[in-house]
Amino acid sequence: MNSFSPIRRQPLRWGVNYTPSEGWFHSWQDFSLDAVKADLESIASIGLDHVRIFPLWPLLQPNRSLIRPAGIADVGKVVDVAAEFGLDVSVDGLQGHLSSYDFLPSWVTSWHRRNIFTDPDVIAAEVELVTALAAEVTSRPNVLGMTLGNETNQFAVERHPDKQTTTPAQMGEWINTLLTAVQKVWPEGMHQHSFDDNVWFIDSAPVTPRQAASLGNSTAVHSWVFTSVARLFPAGHPARTLFADYLVQLAESWAESADRPVWLQEIGAPHPAVAMDGAADFLEQSLRPSMDTPNLWGVTWWCSHDVSRKLADFPELEYTLGLLDSDRTVKPAGRRLAEIIAEEKRNPTPLRQRSTALAFDAGDEATGIGRSVTDPSGEVFAAWLELTARGENPTLVRESRLTDAAYLAARGITNVVSTAHVGAIPAAAANAAPVESDANIWTGQVQA
Amino acid sequence: MNSFSPIRRQPLRWGVNYTPSEGWFHSWQDFSLDAVKADLESIASIGLDHVRIFPLWPLLQPNRSLIRPAGIADVGKVVDVAAEFGLDVSVDGLQGHLSSYDFLPSWVTSWHRRNIFTDPDVIAAEVELVTALAAEVTSRPNVLGMTLGNETNQFAVERHPDKQTTTPAQMGEWINTLLTAVQKVWPEGMHQHSFDDNVWFIDSAPVTPRQAASLGNSTAVHSWVFTSVARLFPAGHPARTLFADYLVQLAESWAESADRPVWLQEIGAPHPAVAMDGAADFLEQSLRPSMDTPNLWGVTWWCSHDVSRKLADFPELEYTLGLLDSDRTVKPAGRRLAEIIAEEKRNPTPLRQRSTALAFDAGDEATGIGRSVTDPSGEVFAAWLELTARGENPTLVRESRLTDAAYLAARGITNVVSTAHVGAIPAAAANAAPVESDANIWTGQVQA
Repeated sequence: MNSFSPIRRQPLRWGVNYTPSEGWFHSWQDFSLDAVKADLESIASIGLDHVRIFPLWPLLQPNRSLIRPAGIADVGKVVDVAAEFGLDVSVDGLQGHLSSYDFLPSWVTSWHRRNIFTDPDVIAAEVELVTALAAEVTSRPNVLGMTLGNETNQFAVERHPDKQTTTPAQMGEWINTLLTAVQKVWPEGMHQHSFDDNVWFIDSAPVTPRQAASLGNSTAVHSWVFTSVARLFPAGHPARTLFADYLVQLAESWAESADRPVWLQEIGAPHPAVAMDGAADFLEQSLRPSMDTPNLWGVTWWCSHDVSRKLADFPELEYTLGLLDSDRTVKPAGRRLAEIIAEEKRNPTPLRQRSTALAFDAGDEATGIGRSVTDPSGEVFAAWLELTARGENPTLVRESRLTDAAYLAARGITNVVSTAHVGAIPAAAANAAPVESDANIWTGQVQA
Repeated sequence: MNSFSPIRRQPLRWGVNYTPSEGWFHSWQDFSLDAVKADLESIASIGLDHVRIFPLWPLLQPNRSLIRPAGIADVGKVVDVAAEFGLDVSVDGLQGHLSSYDFLPSWVTSWHRRNIFTDPDVIAAEVELVTALAAEVTSRPNVLGMTLGNETNQFAVERHPDKQTTTPAQMGEWINTLLTAVQKVWPEGMHQHSFDDNVWFIDSAPVTPRQAASLGNSTAVHSWVFTSVARLFPAGHPARTLFADYLVQLAESWAESADRPVWLQEIGAPHPAVAMDGAADFLEQSLRPSMDTPNLWGVTWWCSHDVSRKLADFPELEYTLGLLDSDRTVKPAGRRLAEIIAEEKRNPTPLRQRSTALAFDAGDEATGIGRSVTDPSGEVFAAWLELTARGENPTLVRESRLTDAAYLAARGITNVVSTAHVGAIPAAAANAAPVESDANIWTGQVQA
């Protein structure tokens, strides 16, 4: 029944989230093809095959009925320059949110405040914008697809200072509406939405795991240890470098089909959760565990170039996340990734289905209430870590799928274990207080 | 003692707030000297001598430590083009607020929310921006000065959806800090801050009337009948066209010196408070009452060009405020203003000091608490209207100045009357309910 092959039909994709070295994303305003060329050349030197790019919403669509042709054309120019260096491009639509900064056009803020997920006029305008972007790039040979926007879910979660109250049903409609619009003008692209790990772990988050793992052509995984793992587990604990694989397996477990692609779309080595001289090791140790995953489409590191120290107010970690520094010099993590890519080309990691799966009760899958059972502070992650420590190389499976023999067979699952069976102690119970002082490393800095 | 002369030392200045006909202020992003030239040529055709211009803060300073040289240079280019058409230019710094839209850079919003009036880092960055603007244009021969920003006070008033809580003392310090910075690089300019009429009428507004009438080189008056007068007095009532003069006299009354310039920096004919075919008459009837005011520096109409119907979500009135339409054709109000300017050049209105002054209790002048006594719904405005109806041509005076004979003499005031003496009925008492259905014409539309 399972015709699994250990050979990838397509090579694993390796890419980077492109953060312009001069002026960060504000450089769209002073668009310089020469600067973009130099950046992309430095990215290609690592051996990467693609970049993810991020135009800014307020610059592209400053009025609800004004999409700037020059702004759209600049996105097309970046794609063309990428082609010169053998790079494919995935385009994010609505930014939206980037590295602690929110960029919303003035026609949805302040006196004009409107819900960006539910207001019909806003949605219609968003449809026009993503359609314009898709139409601009679809005919180019080196494009991959579109992501609706970078972690758009963040605008609707409880912790957001201007939370846009949205139900899961409304969020599903919003994602579907925009994806449908993009697919209409760009049917062959790989299109998806993206989100931070609140979607997997927070019961009240309006984007549900089901939406994460079913809408669009791939499931986007954004793996950041500063969100909780680095607070729960001390430096050197394998939980930190296994977190990305955990998220990849969690994404697998929430997919309805056994062969939905998972895109590790963002992963980075944030200081101080990762020591400044430990980024290369963190990178390798974080990526290797997932490289045998059959459905893993590719890895896109965050980010290409360090944010320049000339720019103020970024959370400290953002200044050092690059594979290259802001002078376009490759850093140790960049060199390590280049080695991994080169080695993987010579000798691809054989694919392996994971026969052992840790089962979890996914709760109400329509609303996502119950998903918090998989939070890194809980028993599911603890048991998964314990199984990993025992060399079991586990994946995850929802209890609701355990009666579906064909599904289990398609995933190669032959050994289902429960958390009770593993008997591991959750980190939250083991550590009553955070084990490190870098709590709120991200939001704490900017909300102070 | 009073050496008053009925001849102006300098001619009354006539100008317009420049609203670009293509793309409104978003046109800064697609800066076209040809479009600016065509706009300014059409403005000059009316006979105007100056424009007030409005760069957008987030475009000029997208990061706290990044002021875009190209953005600053574009402001200089507009000044140069204006010179080609004989137009002087006054530059507004921090936009800030324009026609219902708020433009704040991402480094002071959402996760990065900081008070734009009190946060030391934000103030330092604002100082850098206004300094950069001042330095760019100061050496040009056709510049007038800088306004710190358009109605910056709006961000701190109660009704603002994201109110920046600020005390009068903090606001005074903020205004002084920025004005000092501008004066340092541009000592000879006419610099001021600007504000809407909340400053004159709302006790809790953090900018006080004393700050309005003492900081900077002129007192800026923004006269908009939609804020309250059009709700309180029916169409055709003289209160509507006398409101600008009332504000000019109120600005006079709050000045410490008898010769501080008053700049009628914004006045417009907003539909439906002003009938669509009544804009020219409204313009003339609103401007004539103040033209004999010795301290009146000039009039700057809002605005030059109608907002194009291609742009969405503006309050309806903004689409028709232009002296010219969005195709740069002069409208009836523009023609009427051209006639007034031409006539005034041939035959300047003789200056006249107003011997009758209506006295009012200004309350606590340090905090502005008590200023609401002059609100258009109250007895001061009612009495002032009554005196005007009797042909008295009154000005206003604070009771706290009535013992200062030299001051009264310098203003030419010989006849002080009290509201009790006049005995007029306030509009608010006369009209229990608003007399027209255009209540909340401005905020109501966009907050719905």
